[in-house]
Amino acid sequence: MTGSLTIVGLGPGSAALMAPAAAQALAAATDLVGYGPYLDRVPATAEQRRHASDNRVELQRAREALTLAASGHRVAVVSGGDPGIFAMAAAVLEAVEAGDPAWRALAIDVVPGISAMQAASAQVGALLGHDFCAISLSDNLKPRDVIARRLSAALQADFVIALYNPISKARPDGLGAALDLARGVQAATTPVVFARAVSRADETIRITTLAEAEATMADMQTVVIIGSSQTRLVAKAGGGAWVLTPRSYEAAS
Amino acid sequence: MTGSLTIVGLGPGSAALMAPAAAQALAAATDLVGYGPYLDRVPATAEQRRHASDNRVELQRAREALTLAASGHRVAVVSGGDPGIFAMAAAVLEAVEAGDPAWRALAIDVVPGISAMQAASAQVGALLGHDFCAISLSDNLKPRDVIARRLSAALQADFVIALYNPISKARPDGLGAALDLARGVQAATTPVVFARAVSRADETIRITTLAEAEATMADMQTVVIIGSSQTRLVAKAGGGAWVLTPRSYEAAS
Repeated sequence: MTGSLTIVGLGPGSAALMAPAAAQALAAATDLVGYGPYLDRVPATAEQRRHASDNRVELQRAREALTLAASGHRVAVVSGGDPGIFAMAAAVLEAVEAGDPAWRALAIDVVPGISAMQAASAQVGALLGHDFCAISLSDNLKPRDVIARRLSAALQADFVIALYNPISKARPDGLGAALDLARGVQAATTPVVFARAVSRADETIRITTLAEAEATMADMQTVVIIGSSQTRLVAKAGGGAWVLTPRSYEAAS
Repeated sequence: MTGSLTIVGLGPGSAALMAPAAAQALAAATDLVGYGPYLDRVPATAEQRRHASDNRVELQRAREALTLAASGHRVAVVSGGDPGIFAMAAAVLEAVEAGDPAWRALAIDVVPGISAMQAASAQVGALLGHDFCAISLSDNLKPRDVIARRLSAALQADFVIALYNPISKARPDGLGAALDLARGVQAATTPVVFARAVSRADETIRITTLAEAEATMADMQTVVIIGSSQTRLVAKAGGGAWVLTPRSYEAAS
């Protein structure tokens, strides 16, 4: 048995932001496993088998990939962004932990990628310029009180806060509640960025303020980033602005 | 004037983890500006000028780069990891904010990269597998009480915590204090990872526990990652283990 499993991060979208190690792992695989729209980003080759699955079946997808690898295939699990940040790396190891003991003998590797918050921060300037946190608003696997507790602590700590999975049909109100929590702590003028499909053809980036931010500005392809007390705009000569969270910290007056 | 400034992330070290967009920006530059060891990672070309500077002079380096760009050069500011995460993007925009108004007319772009915590998490499995935060322990530009407050809040929120700039000659005790704070909140068995020079020839990764973790295990090239209450080891068949922070959250019993 020479099977292997590599969990590959495609980055935020553009091929120019995917690591060469990811391209190499994809090219070397006999089988690609992943959510359909991610597989569609990988150039087709003649001999490779593709196993597309729906969203929200991560554990089932992980088991399928492990089963293929255990039977001798060279499997690449295709993940958006960084597989280690709200993506497939954890799902695969959860499946290993609970599954066939033989899976623990597999060579399992993770190729990291650029995550959506990083591409968003780069597009607007230096939004993640200092201490920050990343929180998933999905309550599929996490109690809502844990989400609220983490958000409150992050706001008290004055982190820049990146919100992943901000909204879904089953959960239309989570982002609105998070923005309300933030409005209770940070100034109304705090910059908030809604970044959708960054580096892809349909990229849209909106720079607004906490006062103006609304949950309807996000969909499941959006990362929402709320600034800290230090985050501010730096005006460009031609109009528009960069968003900067500086390295230095000045206490609120 | 056709000057431009691109802040380029080299990733954690290996060229296989640097985005093609970064390689393109480096190749297109007339001038490379950066900390010496980062410049040394960029292949030399005949016509390019290199401007190496010491560590801890980020603002001076940013002003030099902006001055070159304003005089018509195509400048690449070379940054380790992701320039948006504890690196040069914020320093450049701070210099713009406080500097020559003409700098606000420059085309300034950021090419993101894979940061050290991501490469470390990938090497050990899925350590950043759920909500996490990133905190710099450097007190050059940030009051120590802000660092302590953020650490305490992050521990109360049960984040995975990535600590950048964990230690320096001027600041030998910050990491020890941070580990002590963590020991007051999280279990002694909580996994802690010390990851140094990830993806480079001299990479060393140590997986230990909060009880065993010591500040002397880190230097300035190390990122230290402290698990959450959910982080655990998944044993490999051949010895060793992956480190997993699962997507699901189980309340402490």
